Amino acid sequence: MREVLEEVLKDVVPSEELRRKAEKAAEELEKRLKEKLKNYPDLEFRFLGSFARDTWLPESLEIDVFVLFPESYTEEELERIGLEIGKSVLDEFELRYAAHPYVHGKVLGVEADVVPCYKLRSAEKIKSAVDRTPFHHEWLKDRIKGKENDVRLLKRFLKASNLYGAEYKVRGFSGYLCELLVVFYGSFENLVKEAAKWRRDLVIDVAKGKVYRKKGLKNIFVVDPVDEKRNVAANLSVDNLAKFVEKCRLFIENPSKEFFYPEREKINDEKLEKELESRFVYEISFEKPAIVEDNLYPQLERACRKISEFLENNDFEVIKTGHFVKDDTCLIYVETAFERLGKIKKHFGPPFEVYEHAMRFIKKEREYKHFFEDGKYVTYVRRKYTQADEAIRDCIRNHWKSLGADVGEKIRSGVVKRVITPSPETKEFIWEFLKLKA
Amino acid sequence: MREVLEEVLKDVVPSEELRRKAEKAAEELEKRLKEKLKNYPDLEFRFLGSFARDTWLPESLEIDVFVLFPESYTEEELERIGLEIGKSVLDEFELRYAAHPYVHGKVLGVEADVVPCYKLRSAEKIKSAVDRTPFHHEWLKDRIKGKENDVRLLKRFLKASNLYGAEYKVRGFSGYLCELLVVFYGSFENLVKEAAKWRRDLVIDVAKGKVYRKKGLKNIFVVDPVDEKRNVAANLSVDNLAKFVEKCRLFIENPSKEFFYPEREKINDEKLEKELESRFVYEISFEKPAIVEDNLYPQLERACRKISEFLENNDFEVIKTGHFVKDDTCLIYVETAFERLGKIKKHFGPPFEVYEHAMRFIKKEREYKHFFEDGKYVTYVRRKYTQADEAIRDCIRNHWKSLGADVGEKIRSGVVKRVITPSPETKEFIWEFLKLKA
Repeated sequence: MREVLEEVLKDVVPSEELRRKAEKAAEELEKRLKEKLKNYPDLEFRFLGSFARDTWLPESLEIDVFVLFPESYTEEELERIGLEIGKSVLDEFELRYAAHPYVHGKVLGVEADVVPCYKLRSAEKIKSAVDRTPFHHEWLKDRIKGKENDVRLLKRFLKASNLYGAEYKVRGFSGYLCELLVVFYGSFENLVKEAAKWRRDLVIDVAKGKVYRKKGLKNIFVVDPVDEKRNVAANLSVDNLAKFVEKCRLFIENPSKEFFYPEREKINDEKLEKELESRFVYEISFEKPAIVEDNLYPQLERACRKISEFLENNDFEVIKTGHFVKDDTCLIYVETAFERLGKIKKHFGPPFEVYEHAMRFIKKEREYKHFFEDGKYVTYVRRKYTQADEAIRDCIRNHWKSLGADVGEKIRSGVVKRVITPSPETKEFIWEFLKLKA
Repeated sequence: MREVLEEVLKDVVPSEELRRKAEKAAEELEKRLKEKLKNYPDLEFRFLGSFARDTWLPESLEIDVFVLFPESYTEEELERIGLEIGKSVLDEFELRYAAHPYVHGKVLGVEADVVPCYKLRSAEKIKSAVDRTPFHHEWLKDRIKGKENDVRLLKRFLKASNLYGAEYKVRGFSGYLCELLVVFYGSFENLVKEAAKWRRDLVIDVAKGKVYRKKGLKNIFVVDPVDEKRNVAANLSVDNLAKFVEKCRLFIENPSKEFFYPEREKINDEKLEKELESRFVYEISFEKPAIVEDNLYPQLERACRKISEFLENNDFEVIKTGHFVKDDTCLIYVETAFERLGKIKKHFGPPFEVYEHAMRFIKKEREYKHFFEDGKYVTYVRRKYTQADEAIRDCIRNHWKSLGADVGEKIRSGVVKRVITPSPETKEFIWEFLKLKA
């Protein structure tokens, strides 16, 4: 394993040249900020995040600067002044949105974020998530020393399997979580060995240096050293936890560089089409609503879940749902176990013993005769939908309100079709959705 | 109600003419038997059953004579001599089979059965079911006096709904059960009023004059006055019990002659075909095995149940099964909720936590990639059957051994097809099977 890690380090540790470029940009940004903040003597700024702690990956260099405001500022002031400062110190910029808007841009060709936040006494009293970042940095900055490259290995190991990032699109491991795990387990190698035995009911208390099982816990809980109520792994899904644990096991068993590079799969078009002909996969395509990803993805998940429930309520067994965003189009995929149902289903009445209820049951006007099953009244009623695509179409046309606030508005005029010959842009996603092997 | 019953009595009480014909035949049969039994001084004969108790319906006059053998006779002797006597006293005859063979034939144009049985001290020590009949007659003959026409009303009421007869083909009320119920409740009218409130957990103890509920009882228990361990209603199915109770309620609410005459329904051919096109009904036709009905029908029920289980095990939801015998052909019908399934189904593995089991799961050679659902391993496996008719065909070809000893042997070369245009002989059955209304 050591040899493999040595090899990989060559790719994950930034070159001297890149470091020099980054340092120069950081110095320039610092100079500009000092100059700018002369106008705001009660504000201060700090370099935080992976750049400040030297845990960044060469392919994702980004300098994070936080501007700290005293609590006397209103949120509106913080936002206005924060953005103004950001715009004035960056060469080119755009607004981005997390809990609050912040400025993203470049300094001497290097990506940078300028994020306003409050300067607080305790991380437990924060007003918004960004206010916690200075505390995270304080806690980590000395503890991570000497382990920076282990963090880099971990990040790349996760990225290769699309497990890096706590955002809703990924539901994986945040950079902060990566650093805490490396501090807790001491090294990448040791983390991998321990994670191979992880369970979803573990509590990892980084500050106290303890790990223990907690009965009934549904997903791993990594206690934030700066706020013990907070789970740093809150956004990590159980299935991504499972993927990570599996990956650790496989890596231990047979260490190789491949674990650090995403695998590109070859798609067999003929196999793909043949598979789609004998399975029932439906695509709903609709215009992407103009919202940020961290809002969009939970809504897409909700839409998948609700469409699934709708189908199941109408007796169409759902095998899997998935979503995929391509440029300005959202795509939802639903695979059902069958395409067509017979026109009737059973409708049960009372056991024959319940005299009055039974009489009401047989006196209702019904399309079919009633009969008994195990002494219980039964009749047939017409199904609302006999075709899966009909059901999906009715769901998005008439029940769009439950499919996410913004997604619902767009999906209602979406297009539903069974997929047999996928477009070139969707092929890769569908190949993976079907769990095909080359 | 009284008026209706008066009207119906005209149809259910035999005419004087028919009675005279029956009496003449009975006298003749008695004469012949006395003559014949001179050779067997230790045998005696008795008129038993509905003819002897004057509870027969005009359309089903049949004289039952039982020849009683002392216990010193072997079964083989009883059978041989019994048949010989029967053959010699009837004008024309054929062998029939109940517990033992007996002779059915005619005397002066009237149907008659000559049945050999043992003469025993107690009905609890019988060797075969027919040995009980003399005891039944003893118990009933005086008690039924004056209530004969109530029995007739009940029998006709049941016949109109195919609820008369304890044989497996019907699973309804035996003649003996009808008489006990009339004795117990005093009259047809009172029986109907009480039966409207029946429950499946009732014990009706005729000899003790008590009726009470028994917790956990799955079907009504009518205690045989001559053998308290025996349930006279053992062969009555819960669903036929329910049908009877419902019929009593409807009759009380709105008495009319129609309850005593079977309804003939008009079949709408066009509606029938349209219905079959939008539902999935499969027919299995095969040669009727040469066995008695009381053996055949339980086997047909078993075959229906087993085919149903087979389909459900292969994820084809079964709505209903039914069987129907037409001349020398047995027909089994199966309705499924859908015709075609996608080629794959989910195959679950262990939760990711179970290290060793997980490693075994992922190392098996598989057609599809695995993934996780709620932390559990899942993969897809190919279904054995994607078409319902394929599954049925494989079931009867390769699993016929479980489909009833004699039925299995025949069904294995049966023909399976989806029904869209039923033949004229099966139309009526299928109309009812689909629970269509005119």
